[in-house]
Amino acid sequence: MTFASMWADLAPIGRAPSGGYRRFALTREDHTLREWFAGEAAARGLDLVTDRAGNQWAWWGAGDEPGIVIGSHLDSVPDGGAFDGPLGVVSSFAAVDALRAAGFTPARPVAVTNFGDEEGARFGVACAGSRVLTGALPAERAKALTDADGIAMGELVDIGPDPEMLARVGAFVELHVEQGRGLADLDRAVAVGSGIWPHGRWRFDLPGEANHAGTTRLEDRRDPMLGYAQLVLAARAAAAKHDAVATCGKVRVEPNGVNAIPSLVTGWLDARGADEERVRAVVEDLRAIAQEHGGRVTEESWTGLTPFDGSLTGRLATLLDDAPVLATGAGHDAGILAAAGVPTAMLFVRNPTGVSHSPAEWAEEQDCLAGVTALAKVVEELAS
Amino acid sequence: MTFASMWADLAPIGRAPSGGYRRFALTREDHTLREWFAGEAAARGLDLVTDRAGNQWAWWGAGDEPGIVIGSHLDSVPDGGAFDGPLGVVSSFAAVDALRAAGFTPARPVAVTNFGDEEGARFGVACAGSRVLTGALPAERAKALTDADGIAMGELVDIGPDPEMLARVGAFVELHVEQGRGLADLDRAVAVGSGIWPHGRWRFDLPGEANHAGTTRLEDRRDPMLGYAQLVLAARAAAAKHDAVATCGKVRVEPNGVNAIPSLVTGWLDARGADEERVRAVVEDLRAIAQEHGGRVTEESWTGLTPFDGSLTGRLATLLDDAPVLATGAGHDAGILAAAGVPTAMLFVRNPTGVSHSPAEWAEEQDCLAGVTALAKVVEELAS
Repeated sequence: MTFASMWADLAPIGRAPSGGYRRFALTREDHTLREWFAGEAAARGLDLVTDRAGNQWAWWGAGDEPGIVIGSHLDSVPDGGAFDGPLGVVSSFAAVDALRAAGFTPARPVAVTNFGDEEGARFGVACAGSRVLTGALPAERAKALTDADGIAMGELVDIGPDPEMLARVGAFVELHVEQGRGLADLDRAVAVGSGIWPHGRWRFDLPGEANHAGTTRLEDRRDPMLGYAQLVLAARAAAAKHDAVATCGKVRVEPNGVNAIPSLVTGWLDARGADEERVRAVVEDLRAIAQEHGGRVTEESWTGLTPFDGSLTGRLATLLDDAPVLATGAGHDAGILAAAGVPTAMLFVRNPTGVSHSPAEWAEEQDCLAGVTALAKVVEELAS
Repeated sequence: MTFASMWADLAPIGRAPSGGYRRFALTREDHTLREWFAGEAAARGLDLVTDRAGNQWAWWGAGDEPGIVIGSHLDSVPDGGAFDGPLGVVSSFAAVDALRAAGFTPARPVAVTNFGDEEGARFGVACAGSRVLTGALPAERAKALTDADGIAMGELVDIGPDPEMLARVGAFVELHVEQGRGLADLDRAVAVGSGIWPHGRWRFDLPGEANHAGTTRLEDRRDPMLGYAQLVLAARAAAAKHDAVATCGKVRVEPNGVNAIPSLVTGWLDARGADEERVRAVVEDLRAIAQEHGGRVTEESWTGLTPFDGSLTGRLATLLDDAPVLATGAGHDAGILAAAGVPTAMLFVRNPTGVSHSPAEWAEEQDCLAGVTALAKVVEELAS
């Protein structure tokens, strides 16, 4: 059960024709991944527990004392990469193996975890497993979420918060492939995470006047596609100006006919940045443009800055040869646990292209093994 | 059976909650409209014939000599207006009534027609009834067209070209609500059509690189939504520059997720203008921009200038008190018949706002009645 053999075992599960992965919560593929996790736990004599929220835990060492938890998730976005999630789980098992091979015996419990439904690809809410565990997402709301076929999560599982399991988490360290090129630029293999950027989602409804594409003079048109196009370009400009990121990845057009001036264009904005002020500044720039076009702006979600545990982060950076400390624009289960008061940290492994959520997502094997070594050091430090 | 009473009979058929109409080919609503047409023919003692392509004809006077045909269509676009189509059919019956009331007896046959599936709202091809009649659309291709539920036209009807019926059309004059403000600006009630602008439809495929909206630096992105936004704004600018019209009314985004940089944006362009050169010039401006973004441009359809019969048009303009002669950017059954060699003309009735294909489409009753009078004059002129 080397890192490479575990990686090879996972490679075919849920692989799509694109070369990416389609591993969605509570599907056959997800079940196969969970069986794999249970098998790895059993092969190591770890104590497998599934919490009330459906997350898997493989405990090394008993006792009710809060333990050191490492791990990540195994599900994917549609046509996602192989590393986002699985790298953390596989590295965690490999770190346990390395510590045991070195004769290490933990002074407090250690666990490897697999959080359920981290990507939210099927039911639309990211980090559903950790959110239900901590109570951040009420179980009744989670069970009412439906997939594209109208199947409710509650038809498939009965879930709820699990404060007892949460109390067993003395600290959580999630290893993850970096989703950017910070480490590549710094020429380092491993970084420590400082926190998760504030991020939000806004909807822009731009009304127009349905009319005939062939007969309506340009000056008589009220065409909301023009306002949408201005918003898209302004979002990029505002992000550059305020040193943030902004994405217009989703749009809906009514009636969406080739020969019809639209009556309504609805665009969505995802904006994130190192602090709340710059993200808000991006949105305000766009709000002004939307209002010029008679549009309405709705904030669909907002999450402020989620810092990881500052003293833990500093301790790990020192331990790992003064590893760089990087923030991330992506949400993670580590962010959910941090918000619930668990001392939390993250490790990032270099991604040469920075590409993520795509079949092109990548990390070199030697960097993955450096991640395993770092994670083993962290567990040795925290569980001694 | 005054104009007003016929209008009132049609008003409730296929009316949508928007106040517009949903009257699609071969639906219950369409059947009701065809029954109405048959009833109007019977009430006047006209000889109802349905041709092999499914179009209805109500003949006044017999004989195999080619006759004067007036009429339009009764179907609608989704949430379309009350006038586009029905105004021509109702006005035609009213013109027959006016001529009879005045004691006119035609020297050659006269017919009122209702062309099937003019808007193509259900099966995607406009003027399907007249195209199948003339053979411009092969019947096998028409029957293979499917609606949004996957139902093929051929499952519902057995259709084919009808050269014998086409040979009975000595001339065709279609009255239609104007789909622009030409008459409103000229302060006139009725115009004669000179022809249909060249028009086409192009698809722009802009590839990108799927990536994470939160973690991908602006400088590392290949985001095709930016290229699409530039195309939308450039289409408007190019249309203004070349004195044409251009519309980006339909777009499809992959994967269309709020937190995903798109891997592909496909946009459609509808472009029309008074001559082919200006339409081509718009497309070439946009092709350059698409190519800068690594995009591909595909011409999905192209129809050159369709002039109506020049001598007939001139004769009618003179007859109607030197009526203005206007071209139109919209396709019509009259264009299909003109392309098939039938001497063809159109009359337009003033539309105060110019809005069409929308519940706000409108014509004042006195302008509609002026249209009936004009149409009666035309039939008197051509059928004496």
